[in-house]
Amino acid sequence: MSKGVAPGAPSVDADHPPAPETNLSPIANAVTERNAAGFVAVGDRFDDDVRYLSRFGGPDREYAVVVSSDRAALTAPSLFGEQAEREFVDAAPADGVEREVRTEHQSEPAGLRAVAALDDYSDTGQTVLTPANIPHAAALYLEQAGYELQSTTAVAEARERKTEAELACLRRVQAVTCRGMARAEAVLAAAGPVGDDLLWDGEPLTTERLRREVDAELARHGVRSAGNTVIGAGPTAADLHFTGIDQISPGETVLLDISPSGPHGYYGDLTRTFGVESEGGWERRAFVAVEEAHQVALDHIEPGVEAGGIHEETAAELAAHGFRVDSGTVGFTHGVGHGVGVSLHEGPSLTGEASLEPGHVITIEPGVYDPSQGGVRIEDLVVITEAGYERLASYPVRFTPKAAE
Amino acid sequence: MSKGVAPGAPSVDADHPPAPETNLSPIANAVTERNAAGFVAVGDRFDDDVRYLSRFGGPDREYAVVVSSDRAALTAPSLFGEQAEREFVDAAPADGVEREVRTEHQSEPAGLRAVAALDDYSDTGQTVLTPANIPHAAALYLEQAGYELQSTTAVAEARERKTEAELACLRRVQAVTCRGMARAEAVLAAAGPVGDDLLWDGEPLTTERLRREVDAELARHGVRSAGNTVIGAGPTAADLHFTGIDQISPGETVLLDISPSGPHGYYGDLTRTFGVESEGGWERRAFVAVEEAHQVALDHIEPGVEAGGIHEETAAELAAHGFRVDSGTVGFTHGVGHGVGVSLHEGPSLTGEASLEPGHVITIEPGVYDPSQGGVRIEDLVVITEAGYERLASYPVRFTPKAAE
Repeated sequence: MSKGVAPGAPSVDADHPPAPETNLSPIANAVTERNAAGFVAVGDRFDDDVRYLSRFGGPDREYAVVVSSDRAALTAPSLFGEQAEREFVDAAPADGVEREVRTEHQSEPAGLRAVAALDDYSDTGQTVLTPANIPHAAALYLEQAGYELQSTTAVAEARERKTEAELACLRRVQAVTCRGMARAEAVLAAAGPVGDDLLWDGEPLTTERLRREVDAELARHGVRSAGNTVIGAGPTAADLHFTGIDQISPGETVLLDISPSGPHGYYGDLTRTFGVESEGGWERRAFVAVEEAHQVALDHIEPGVEAGGIHEETAAELAAHGFRVDSGTVGFTHGVGHGVGVSLHEGPSLTGEASLEPGHVITIEPGVYDPSQGGVRIEDLVVITEAGYERLASYPVRFTPKAAE
Repeated sequence: MSKGVAPGAPSVDADHPPAPETNLSPIANAVTERNAAGFVAVGDRFDDDVRYLSRFGGPDREYAVVVSSDRAALTAPSLFGEQAEREFVDAAPADGVEREVRTEHQSEPAGLRAVAALDDYSDTGQTVLTPANIPHAAALYLEQAGYELQSTTAVAEARERKTEAELACLRRVQAVTCRGMARAEAVLAAAGPVGDDLLWDGEPLTTERLRREVDAELARHGVRSAGNTVIGAGPTAADLHFTGIDQISPGETVLLDISPSGPHGYYGDLTRTFGVESEGGWERRAFVAVEEAHQVALDHIEPGVEAGGIHEETAAELAAHGFRVDSGTVGFTHGVGHGVGVSLHEGPSLTGEASLEPGHVITIEPGVYDPSQGGVRIEDLVVITEAGYERLASYPVRFTPKAAE
């Protein structure tokens, strides 16, 4: 239904992918291996671990997810018990873990409700595994009940390798993200310089006007901005996460980093940089360098490769183009990318010696910045495959915005 | 720029209100009164306390806010140090608390960085005040450094009374929320029955199509869905927080509960219920009862009134109309409202004996439900004033959707 998007954006259908099933056996196995009473996560609906483990989309209360060696519980308010049954129990995979929703004692804190479930499930151990960010109040209830807390990375590790159903969500959100970029590109292509301003639809074009066009296009396709549609122009393009209001002038780099939340909370992430009526100079040189470094990074991806090596290869390419890679403020100032899933930033880490494995979903996003000039970043979202990598959606790379067809 | 909204929606201007200043003196005073070394909050950008205290819109990392009797620190990554300086330090009010951004040791956990700030600020006490949801890992760092944790409600209490600048944000987001509702109403008014379906723009109208229209309208005005644009039709309207996909049929109650995130993270909250080609019966009786109960609740509001009394008055009115108020599944099944601010649900509580005070912002949202029939809810967002209350924005209450002018 939407008009005026730039050419090259993938088509998207109207359907949401189904909710991915979460296999709880890695968590249950961690409980067994460490001879623990169970695993406990506590958080609200913005807690990505709780969301991943439960697939429950209830209101913003505090929930507990408890996993033993063969059982799992989600605590929920009784008003939302049926929804919790559908999403946590009925939609569960056959992973050997029997699930239940517990609505009793709903006025008690989630930590106390977790204790009740743990007490029911196990007397084999007094250790409880938790993510490091478990709220302190919940931890105290567990400790007061005699449990000893140990942190576990089992959930973070399980989240790193995406299933096909998760990839369907990521492909969908990234395809819509491309639509949002296409809308922005079409607006930029239609904008024209009048003196020091860039005019669009009769008024000076600002980052905020452009952001609203992008976010509305996302919404029309059922995807929502997470409040982080970054658009900078000139000096504010060198501000890595600029979400403020700035006039867009002819010749400036216009950097758009769109990372919205799509089906079942999976994030997209796409960055492109354009210049309208650019006269070349720093902007063109930066664009060529970043475009080539982006390709060098992609070419370096294969299963088993050391993740930290990608950053080194990318930095070397940018340095060869004459950009600094050792400064906090000028040149290539950040890491080459990060994992993406139900969190915008999650594992795998792209620093260090760990290797990339099939199913990992990562961004590749080299950029160079100069606060006196502007910023250029190019970012794609890719999944590691047995053969190398695949983009989750493709969007053209070009500096001069192309008009909508 | 948007066309096709129903009449009665307030006009909105394009400008964002400025970021509200956070007065840290209530937190500093709590530190002094309890002879504590300081106050520590730790969380990411989705943590509403951290956001309120810091007004920092950085990326999704873990941050610490430390407040002593006269100083305050925000830990930030050095890449975002300048932004943090602008938002946390430069924009601060004259509240007697000297602020700083600390970017050193940025690779260390937020809890350890909080310890470093505390150690610098104070040797007067070994108690540290924290919100109850401080992450356990951060609490352990504080305890290992010799501090004893005590929980405080100082931040929650400070958040309950809104400043004029906060009210400007709430008015803005609620005005845009009304625009979203107007868009939905216009779509419903333009939809027509064809057999068992309601057709709009040539295709069957679903809750998801309607949701996308609402969310796109919000986005066009710089406000974003928080993933919770509730739209139910018939039985799914009895599902309090339905965000799924359902066909909308003629005669069904169509319940829309729109609660998006606006400027500086402040939430709007507005519910209306419509019926297209309704033949009356349960739907009309429920609508009349809820409309009258809504007015009864509003009429009961005045400064100093016991908050829990509003629920009782509302329930009595609904009972007088023949609806149950004592069941978890049929009739009036939930509380009459809640406080709203940078969290969608925050203080003041509308249960219990605490009194409403000027500056409190609350929803008034009676509703009745019957899973075999549908659901009706009417909700406005109001601020308590010296004289009684004011709606933060007004939207007409009517059952039959009115066409756009």
